[in-house]
Amino acid sequence: MITLTSDFGLVDPYVGIVHGVILSLNPDARIVDLTHAVPPQAVEAGAFALLTAFESFAPDTIHWCVVDPGVGTNRRGIIARTTSGWFVGPDNGLLSFVLDRHALVGCWVLDRPGHWRHPISTTFHGRDIFAPTAALLSRGEDADTLGTVTSSLPVRLAPLAGQRRPDGSIHGRVVWVDHFGNAITSVESALVPAAGGDVRVGVARAPVVRTYAEHPGEPTVALVGSSGFLEVASPNGNAARLLGLRVGDSVTLHP
Amino acid sequence: MITLTSDFGLVDPYVGIVHGVILSLNPDARIVDLTHAVPPQAVEAGAFALLTAFESFAPDTIHWCVVDPGVGTNRRGIIARTTSGWFVGPDNGLLSFVLDRHALVGCWVLDRPGHWRHPISTTFHGRDIFAPTAALLSRGEDADTLGTVTSSLPVRLAPLAGQRRPDGSIHGRVVWVDHFGNAITSVESALVPAAGGDVRVGVARAPVVRTYAEHPGEPTVALVGSSGFLEVASPNGNAARLLGLRVGDSVTLHP
Amino acid sequence: MITLTSDFGLVDPYVGIVHGVILSLNPDARIVDLTHAVPPQAVEAGAFALLTAFESFAPDTIHWCVVDPGVGTNRRGIIARTTSGWFVGPDNGLLSFVLDRHALVGCWVLDRPGHWRHPISTTFHGRDIFAPTAALLSRGEDADTLGTVTSSLPVRLAPLAGQRRPDGSIHGRVVWVDHFGNAITSVESALVPAAGGDVRVGVARAPVVRTYAEHPGEPTVALVGSSGFLEVASPNGNAARLLGLRVGDSVTLHP
Repeated sequence: MITLTSDFGLVDPYVGIVHGVILSLNPDARIVDLTHAVPPQAVEAGAFALLTAFESFAPDTIHWCVVDPGVGTNRRGIIARTTSGWFVGPDNGLLSFVLDRHALVGCWVLDRPGHWRHPISTTFHGRDIFAPTAALLSRGEDADTLGTVTSSLPVRLAPLAGQRRPDGSIHGRVVWVDHFGNAITSVESALVPAAGGDVRVGVARAPVVRTYAEHPGEPTVALVGSSGFLEVASPNGNAARLLGLRVGDSVTLHP
Repeated sequence: MITLTSDFGLVDPYVGIVHGVILSLNPDARIVDLTHAVPPQAVEAGAFALLTAFESFAPDTIHWCVVDPGVGTNRRGIIARTTSGWFVGPDNGLLSFVLDRHALVGCWVLDRPGHWRHPISTTFHGRDIFAPTAALLSRGEDADTLGTVTSSLPVRLAPLAGQRRPDGSIHGRVVWVDHFGNAITSVESALVPAAGGDVRVGVARAPVVRTYAEHPGEPTVALVGSSGFLEVASPNGNAARLLGLRVGDSVTLHP
Repeated sequence: MITLTSDFGLVDPYVGIVHGVILSLNPDARIVDLTHAVPPQAVEAGAFALLTAFESFAPDTIHWCVVDPGVGTNRRGIIARTTSGWFVGPDNGLLSFVLDRHALVGCWVLDRPGHWRHPISTTFHGRDIFAPTAALLSRGEDADTLGTVTSSLPVRLAPLAGQRRPDGSIHGRVVWVDHFGNAITSVESALVPAAGGDVRVGVARAPVVRTYAEHPGEPTVALVGSSGFLEVASPNGNAARLLGLRVGDSVTLHP
């Protein structure tokens, strides 16, 4: 099983081409598209999408994940093995949030062009390097034949969780805006009070609730969503559009 | 074979996660995405999308269909078996239009949490309840082990067809707006005259034609589309945008 | 293996229905969606999408490709076999750019309604004619049983390449706008100078570079992209939106 996460979008044949490269090397691969709508080059959002999906898949699943602003520079390509699944992609922090929860078992630098697709483009390593690597791995090839084991750990982003301030408030940031306009934040459920509290985003306030229907009069509410993070939602509308929220924006939870 | 229809969109990993849950329980499942672009919480549009697709699949196909404004309330989850296929999803009318044409063979209430994914979220039953149910059903599990048979029939919406008025005109509504901007109505082909007649939407008129090319001068025309319903189209443009049409709008056919 | 390319979009169940028709005839088919976001009825853009994907697939792959402004008229439906893959779809030029690079081995007119899905709609031959044809072909059916061999060659569009003018400049056109807003042109890499030169689109100029990062100050640059054609890009933005570029627009390369 191989999952795909990227910022390629669904307008172009790029995703289909990646499927084709994988299936030509391993016709028995099962490929699941997680999302290709990561905002362009937004590594942190890609890392969050990967985290939310990771735990729904078996631990021998291979997660091809390519949000790659550094393509063509000297950033490394890696295979990383965790206790909950494999990762193949650029080493730029995409695996950070998974590694905050699941132990790293091994890491390999991709340095064996003999296993890649040629000619290697300067802009599409997802097709030329990461797709063949994921396909060969899924076919049972040893990671040691696809790369060289390294003790240099994968790049890490600042962890999710939310940062507690002297006044007791918790500072977080928007890490994903979903299809319904819910703004999912970096604040984990453990920091969210069972009752009371509100979230401030700019000048707006959203009371913390447990279900969408709880405060029918409120234009926006905050609740723990299906992936275990605090999110800002608008019961009958689009919270992100209403409040002008985007990935990276600050939010403060006052418990 | 399992088909998926929802209002989840393709921005988030939700659809990929549903694929993952199904494949982890039945690695041999064939999954086909029908559409995930049902307008948010638009049950009738979801019911229409399901109808248009239903008849292209074999009668042992399982249709997972989740447009679920009542998630987290006490609406039932069901398995329904018809002469043309299985349905798994919330009991809110999604199966209505299929049941207008195909007989119900059996209906089961989903009340066996032992078969679900835990912890069960309050907002994502598509992943936690309906995906495992569809997967187990596709693996040959008996519906009687996944739920309890019930004689209480599934919720029904007002049927499609079009309503004939005293003056001979036929009243219908827009049930789907497609990618090309064609506004598909609830008026079935049997009610559409072979020649002549026009459709009125607001102040606009669209003559009934048989092919797009027939009335080259008209900005909008009405014709029976590939799913057997009258639709309003703009031969070289986007009828929905041109006339401001949305799901739920009224249309009148004057034969 | 069957690939799908169309202008159907992902809003409607049309693509899922095509999957269903294929899988009902050949449950073992592997189906890869290349893109369904070809601009409506843009045959040349469809031909370009098909070209960029064609070479990533094995030569026994069947490419179902349906961008079909002539559906319902007397344009032919064909099977075409090339040295690099099979094509099934309307005969309107979609295979042109592939045929500029790969030899035609055989061509068959689709004239055997016994193999089609009935009733045959006037607007959805992708489902009723081309999907069953591709499915049966993938199941090993002989092309001679699905159609009649013809010596009348497939319709051809003006070739890609770029047209050299007396003043040494090269004239091309935009053939695709990708998800990142890069405007891909018809000018092949062989015509692009290794250093120097610029591209003019309307009143704007974009210097020819080798990597996105080379000219950090420039709002737009031109470079050979991953599919081997000159493209106009904006290093930190959306070139197509910035310059108002669309499929069909003229560009001039001054080497």
